[in-house]
Amino acid sequence: MKDKIRTILKERNGFVSGQELSEGLGVSRTAVWKVIRQLEEEGYVFEAVRNKGYRLVTEPDLLTKAAISERLSTEWAGQEVCSFDEIDSTNNEAKRQAEIGAPHGLLVISEVQTAGRGRMGRPWSSPAGSGIWMSLLLRPSLAPIQASGLTLVMALAIREAIVTLTGAECRIKWPNDIVADGKKVCGILTEMSAEPDRINHVVIGVGINVTDDSFPEEIRDRAISIWQVCGQKIQRAELVAEILKTFERFYEQYLQSGDMSTLLDAYNAALINCGQTVRVLDPKGEYEAVARGIIPSGALIVEKDGQTREIISGEVSVRGVYGYV
Amino acid sequence: MKDKIRTILKERNGFVSGQELSEGLGVSRTAVWKVIRQLEEEGYVFEAVRNKGYRLVTEPDLLTKAAISERLSTEWAGQEVCSFDEIDSTNNEAKRQAEIGAPHGLLVISEVQTAGRGRMGRPWSSPAGSGIWMSLLLRPSLAPIQASGLTLVMALAIREAIVTLTGAECRIKWPNDIVADGKKVCGILTEMSAEPDRINHVVIGVGINVTDDSFPEEIRDRAISIWQVCGQKIQRAELVAEILKTFERFYEQYLQSGDMSTLLDAYNAALINCGQTVRVLDPKGEYEAVARGIIPSGALIVEKDGQTREIISGEVSVRGVYGYV
Repeated sequence: MKDKIRTILKERNGFVSGQELSEGLGVSRTAVWKVIRQLEEEGYVFEAVRNKGYRLVTEPDLLTKAAISERLSTEWAGQEVCSFDEIDSTNNEAKRQAEIGAPHGLLVISEVQTAGRGRMGRPWSSPAGSGIWMSLLLRPSLAPIQASGLTLVMALAIREAIVTLTGAECRIKWPNDIVADGKKVCGILTEMSAEPDRINHVVIGVGINVTDDSFPEEIRDRAISIWQVCGQKIQRAELVAEILKTFERFYEQYLQSGDMSTLLDAYNAALINCGQTVRVLDPKGEYEAVARGIIPSGALIVEKDGQTREIISGEVSVRGVYGYV
Repeated sequence: MKDKIRTILKERNGFVSGQELSEGLGVSRTAVWKVIRQLEEEGYVFEAVRNKGYRLVTEPDLLTKAAISERLSTEWAGQEVCSFDEIDSTNNEAKRQAEIGAPHGLLVISEVQTAGRGRMGRPWSSPAGSGIWMSLLLRPSLAPIQASGLTLVMALAIREAIVTLTGAECRIKWPNDIVADGKKVCGILTEMSAEPDRINHVVIGVGINVTDDSFPEEIRDRAISIWQVCGQKIQRAELVAEILKTFERFYEQYLQSGDMSTLLDAYNAALINCGQTVRVLDPKGEYEAVARGIIPSGALIVEKDGQTREIISGEVSVRGVYGYV
């Protein structure tokens, strides 16, 4: 009954009388009042006016299985959800679930990560309530070398979803960060389990700063939230559902070609590095070059003294010469 | 005291009187006799002759942590051992241990695997007492693409160890089986956990048929044991220690060059496919060609109509045209 009352109030987008609710659902006015009280305890805010009834003012920004599932429009991505109040790391949990047979498309999500990680084992700050810390489990029929491209596919899907929901001016920093105002909105950590011949599973971990308005001192010059970028406090479950829908579409395209070729134009259009001078942190010697965009393998093409080179993620890092980007 | 008595009897390689043992160890004759009884229960066989004492006739073929450790001469490989009577799969256990921080060089070994696997998820028969089912955990500083070469390194180490201990005529079938008389003595299953940029860990699973004298009907034409090949019943712990010693040496060489270049000649000399006609099961179309050996990346070079091609494990399978090999 709680779900029904919530849905009616959400869809009406105006006042609904207690009588209408009790008659429509065949329950007492007291029962309706109790449900409204329950919803208020979960964080819903209602305006209650005598003779007019209840109006939904604010929904809580919940990141529960129910909150995600009711917004989901995918075939498989997130059709199974494991949500936690607290976990070591959603990637670790997804890997554990994968080893005991969890299906393609499983989404692991947590309000808090106690041991969130970024790439190369770096720690990732994952405070409660303000971000999205999630991992998606995939079981693609790809060779291990094709797995790294999935990171780019996820970056593209997240950037697209943020722009669709908020219009926020954010771009991709190759290979897989989302940045705005020269700071990081989102990081992605892809991990795979593979035999030399085939992938067992891939886990794509995503950390998005959504409604943070202050970051710890030590990352303040490098981190920014969607709210800080565009002034909108979006529902996190809404963004998760939009990301999964977009990712699912791009993923199918990636599988068809086995590389980024069909997503190349979209990715390069979203890439902040294109045409910019970047510093290539090649272990054999750093140098500056101009980024030109990716090729289907996912490698970044840079140009230096009229010559082009392919930069493979892992061999080098790319830093903008001005600021973080 | 048990270890001491066992060591004395092993090293003497002849009769040791009960009196000598009791005086040397400062214990009663009864205490010595009790230890001898214990050892007999573990499978040791002694000849006991009045006025001469005890002579060790046969050691049991134990594959315990103690049996391996006392034969080990490595720096790190197998310095930590987890041994089981029964486990789902030693690779699974090694992966679980890896996720909770087990060190480089951990060896997982089990008398029985209830869900042993070969490559591509194929089942692997792992009966009690007659084989070695083990997994070695590695944490190499390599790019993910370099991990598959470790399979070749292990194949080379196992072949070398078998030849050293038994002189058995066995060879490597590219990329990572050990074969004799056209049948499989050993299979290897390498699995890795990786980020696009770096390896988290690699688990190399090894299954060796050591003393089997009959195989199940369905694999009899494809499987053979070391004992069947050369008529020697070697101690399994002895072979494990020899493999780990050899692997450790080859592994350091592999890390130095980052590929098979320093092991190329040894590998190609051990390769049964060299100069043989093989059937390349390319998904784009099968064909026959002559195998020429591997290159540093681990790819197999085949020659067809005067043209050479590189065969990458995973893209194709290689079958001998005559028989299993």
